[in-house]
Amino acid sequence: MKRLKDRIREEGLILSDTVLKVDSFLNHQVDTELVLEIGKELVARFADKTITKVLTIEASGIQFAMAAGIALKVPFVYAKKKKAVTQSEQVYSASVHSFTKQETYQVTVSKNYLGPGDKVLIVDDFLATGAALVGLVQIVRDSGAELAGVSCVIEKGFQEGRGLLEQMNVSVESLATISRMAPGEIDFEESAKELVKETV
Amino acid sequence: MKRLKDRIREEGLILSDTVLKVDSFLNHQVDTELVLEIGKELVARFADKTITKVLTIEASGIQFAMAAGIALKVPFVYAKKKKAVTQSEQVYSASVHSFTKQETYQVTVSKNYLGPGDKVLIVDDFLATGAALVGLVQIVRDSGAELAGVSCVIEKGFQEGRGLLEQMNVSVESLATISRMAPGEIDFEESAKELVKETV
Repeated sequence: MKRLKDRIREEGLILSDTVLKVDSFLNHQVDTELVLEIGKELVARFADKTITKVLTIEASGIQFAMAAGIALKVPFVYAKKKKAVTQSEQVYSASVHSFTKQETYQVTVSKNYLGPGDKVLIVDDFLATGAALVGLVQIVRDSGAELAGVSCVIEKGFQEGRGLLEQMNVSVESLATISRMAPGEIDFEESAKELVKETV
Repeated sequence: MKRLKDRIREEGLILSDTVLKVDSFLNHQVDTELVLEIGKELVARFADKTITKVLTIEASGIQFAMAAGIALKVPFVYAKKKKAVTQSEQVYSASVHSFTKQETYQVTVSKNYLGPGDKVLIVDDFLATGAALVGLVQIVRDSGAELAGVSCVIEKGFQEGRGLLEQMNVSVESLATISRMAPGEIDFEESAKELVKETV
């Protein structure tokens, strides 16, 4: 998505080889109009699937799930993060280890809002280590819902997230895949597929 | 907002005299189409102000700020919650005591995204004790921005939030004000003003 990559180049703050902040337009201050466009693009890549529900994780996935839900005219569900959860019959849950925060938390979704009959698109802001997304995939599979795939806004292509998801036979799409970054420098993968989409 | 009140009556789970759960359509699973309508209504009540930015607090305010931002075609900012914050030159912050969680946390907004020249509408899902909203009002005032007012989806009219905000000379609007609730029963305030709006 050219417009997104341009904006990352203009406003993204690259703090290290692995840390990119997009606080001025995606993750703290949010450009609502850009996020609506991102929502259309997140779902366009799964246009052949009849998605009934979008799933994300609080907090920073919410605006993208909302935009994807608007584009598809379907509801979205956001998984909740908890430090520790007493096992409950009423929720699906998965353990997720956060490498940035060096802690393990539980991701939970109420059994009322996901189940057989649902066809789910998982969306999130970043695909990096993939830890949170692997947890969401496990939850969708536990629920008996069908998984259409995972669609992310920004992918750190040099981290292991995509590989982990593809090993689970999950279809993965990203709107901007970073192949390499360092303070002051950022390179995006420019796949043939993307170039075609963007010139259409 | 009649449609919202009807939905609360149909799907809200009243767990006690003070706890209402709206997880099936607003706060865990989200009815995107209803939330877009809520966004229009949240801002319609401040139509005479030229709002430049919407402000809310993570996580459950995000979808409503997004919807209000879409309605106004302006960006939104979501304040971040932190357990403890080292004082920083770069953020506005306020201490907020959560009565439900019995803990005090810091609410922070980057100084880059709020300042003189902004006219801010604060939105949130619930107005109850008002603790978080008072914190957001303090942050807006610290920033030198102008505050248009506070617009909430659901107000617990029997709690002190509105009173605290009005003492600070803040204009407060809510789309559904609960005057009394108990398991199985819920009453809404039906102000003349609201009735006029809903029949127009």
